[in-house]
Amino acid sequence: MQVNELLTDKTTEEAAWTALERSIIYYQGRPVGTLAAYDVTTEALNYDQCFIRDFVSAALIFLIKGRTDIVRNFLEETLKLQPKERQLDAYKPGRGLIPASFKVISNNGEEYLEADFGEHAIARVTPVDSCLWWIILLRAYVIATKDFSLAYQPEFQNGIRLIMEICLANRFDMYPTLLVPDGACMIDRRMGIYGHPLELQVLFYAALRAAREMLICQGNQDIVAAIDNRLPLLCGHIRQHYWIDINRLNAIYRFKSEEYGKTAVNLFNIYVDSLPYYELDKWLPRKGGYLAGNVGPSQLDTRFFTLGNLMAVISDLATEEQSQAIMTLIEERWDDLVGDMPMKICFPALEDEEYRIVTGCDPKNIPWSYHNAGSWPVLMWMLAAASVKTKRTNLAAEAIGIAQARLGEDEWPEYYDGKKGRLIGKQARKYQTWSITGYLLAKELMANPSYLRLVSFDELPPEAVSRACEFEIRSVDPYIA
Amino acid sequence: MQVNELLTDKTTEEAAWTALERSIIYYQGRPVGTLAAYDVTTEALNYDQCFIRDFVSAALIFLIKGRTDIVRNFLEETLKLQPKERQLDAYKPGRGLIPASFKVISNNGEEYLEADFGEHAIARVTPVDSCLWWIILLRAYVIATKDFSLAYQPEFQNGIRLIMEICLANRFDMYPTLLVPDGACMIDRRMGIYGHPLELQVLFYAALRAAREMLICQGNQDIVAAIDNRLPLLCGHIRQHYWIDINRLNAIYRFKSEEYGKTAVNLFNIYVDSLPYYELDKWLPRKGGYLAGNVGPSQLDTRFFTLGNLMAVISDLATEEQSQAIMTLIEERWDDLVGDMPMKICFPALEDEEYRIVTGCDPKNIPWSYHNAGSWPVLMWMLAAASVKTKRTNLAAEAIGIAQARLGEDEWPEYYDGKKGRLIGKQARKYQTWSITGYLLAKELMANPSYLRLVSFDELPPEAVSRACEFEIRSVDPYIA
Repeated sequence: MQVNELLTDKTTEEAAWTALERSIIYYQGRPVGTLAAYDVTTEALNYDQCFIRDFVSAALIFLIKGRTDIVRNFLEETLKLQPKERQLDAYKPGRGLIPASFKVISNNGEEYLEADFGEHAIARVTPVDSCLWWIILLRAYVIATKDFSLAYQPEFQNGIRLIMEICLANRFDMYPTLLVPDGACMIDRRMGIYGHPLELQVLFYAALRAAREMLICQGNQDIVAAIDNRLPLLCGHIRQHYWIDINRLNAIYRFKSEEYGKTAVNLFNIYVDSLPYYELDKWLPRKGGYLAGNVGPSQLDTRFFTLGNLMAVISDLATEEQSQAIMTLIEERWDDLVGDMPMKICFPALEDEEYRIVTGCDPKNIPWSYHNAGSWPVLMWMLAAASVKTKRTNLAAEAIGIAQARLGEDEWPEYYDGKKGRLIGKQARKYQTWSITGYLLAKELMANPSYLRLVSFDELPPEAVSRACEFEIRSVDPYIA
Repeated sequence: MQVNELLTDKTTEEAAWTALERSIIYYQGRPVGTLAAYDVTTEALNYDQCFIRDFVSAALIFLIKGRTDIVRNFLEETLKLQPKERQLDAYKPGRGLIPASFKVISNNGEEYLEADFGEHAIARVTPVDSCLWWIILLRAYVIATKDFSLAYQPEFQNGIRLIMEICLANRFDMYPTLLVPDGACMIDRRMGIYGHPLELQVLFYAALRAAREMLICQGNQDIVAAIDNRLPLLCGHIRQHYWIDINRLNAIYRFKSEEYGKTAVNLFNIYVDSLPYYELDKWLPRKGGYLAGNVGPSQLDTRFFTLGNLMAVISDLATEEQSQAIMTLIEERWDDLVGDMPMKICFPALEDEEYRIVTGCDPKNIPWSYHNAGSWPVLMWMLAAASVKTKRTNLAAEAIGIAQARLGEDEWPEYYDGKKGRLIGKQARKYQTWSITGYLLAKELMANPSYLRLVSFDELPPEAVSRACEFEIRSVDPYIA
């Protein structure tokens, strides 16, 4: 590395810290979160709020830097926003939900927090991921501070319990996965991620594991038993039914369809003509693989979704072998998935008729833009964490190098567009907080791999795995061995 | 009518009764249901089972003909199949569900019933409609027999309560509608009816009303309060957000998009380019209208779905004005919706790329076949009931005349294909029970309109409607006045 490059990095990093500092939201004199973006050049809309999912990377950075008070305040205040009573009114948020975002409102000198559970959001999308991230973050706080007492407080125990209750509620479908409406996570617009999309299943898995660590068994036996039952089933289900590599594609390619009865091999009745098998035949590296974006009746979404795949590596939802295969795929398809800005939110883009039909003609999600295969710097921290976990740190190092050459100069855009990510996002805000923190956090994780434990999990204990029910156990077996 | 036509009708009807009789399933000596089809020429697959949704029209016929024992036995036996305990195992049916179907199994001379909750079904689809139809049918039994005591039995009260609990469970989304996976109703294959499809919302509404009539308040105050709260919100939501006529289309056509905040007019952020507005401009009669197939984030499915629209008329979910408009649409678009066999399950078909993407290349649901705009005789009874309710009996009379000229001769196929319904369904079974009962029930409803009360509801009492929450009340108001 040259001296002037070193200087640029240092400047970039310093500028990032300054920008992060500026984004901190204060409530009644205490720091409680960060603005989504601090971009004075454009209308605030909802970018003046603190989004729960956006705050995650900032929170991890604050924990690493010993500024644990911000995270604690955030957890305490958002917990207060969680509805605690059963709501009769169907237009009100359900008991247990954590809002998508909140903002500080001043009224006659009095400050209060206003939460948004989707009722203000464009298209009224539901933030299912918020309550899952909240639990994951609470665990990170506990690990960073070694202060279990926060999680053991009755209010926090109740908060965790209520989230588990809404996630584990009596349901219509018979899968261990979570049924959600379209756009209920980071991709908060219609993108064909209704039903059982990967991102939410992975966050659900991580939240179940985090809740299991933190819940006091006494008084919560029912929830703990439900978690213990769900974890191995969910794990086996994702590892088996979502996995795609060339062997699996070969199996699917020759699936019979219209099988009736319990012995069906093609469980979801996937018609191979619905898959771009010819593209995948070319695209899948010999040793690479990934978890599919979505699985449902006659539906196998073969798009690669980055957040779900990386978090599956980090949370140990993917097997060790699958994790290595995911990293191999990223390495071998670097140009597609990283290109000139780490990293694509998904690949490939929905184009032509598929774009029209699946997104409902969303002008913000045109092909290779925004959620539809745009590039999002925030994903860099997950790439770093997954790289550390799989001991493939060369991948994250290279990605950080690419980002650092541009991010500061481009003033931390929310996202980039184009096949290689060389265009600053068409409607991207500048000084988007999670672009800043995604970069800073990636650097911290690389510099000190021990921080990985804030968000990662060890292997699911075999005794838990062995509880998988007989319905699937034969077919699940090879994946949980 | 000519003498030979009269004779044909008489013969058709007699043949129908004979075939219906033959389809009755006996269990431990008692009649408990009807086979899906009695077609000796083809493999049974799951057509040897009694499907809950298929049995509805048979049950109504039996009630009308005083053979109430079959219906009572059916209700008692299916109630026993309903899981009563909370299931920890995520692959087991949830508490409160009613199976999609059941069959009688003989083992060493002992008979027992085997239920299928979707775990045997092709693509493992979830039968959400079963528990809703079960409640609607229980109410029909009570009305027909004037025997409220069956519904008041503790087991039945518990059964209703459990169904209400699963339907009213704590949820992620903030709508009065029910979130379901794709293919969870009569259309039990992938057809873009995930999320909040019309059919299930209408059945949900009817089941809520039926449960409200039958639940003993004492001990069920929480459920009754939840129903009373949900009904007007659900009603207002469907009447407003699902309605399409030329005025509404004009409003949608000029919608702004990307509106943020509570004052958004385009609540679901529909992009007009995603709608076939040019086709609808031509297709919508001046005074006709209908309820859309599905509404979600940036999603307005403008297909006409027959079951949902007709049941909305019958259950009084549609306003009187909307009901008349739906019947006007059917009258004015007779060739499209009735053609040579009443009646299309939906219109128009998904074709080309849309077919490929939305159905996942389902070879059974190719355009103008089966669920994808095929014609289903069973829908005739709903057309008759809706015709009676709206005093437009000329429509049903004409439809019955068309059907009767062919159905018996064609040996009661399950469905017909083609744009006008002149092809016997490509994979249709013969002697499909609900084709037989759909025809017979339509005739009974026309001959004695008082039978309508078995399935219909009066106006939702205004005091219930007035409980709608303030979030939507202003916009809902005009539709519930």
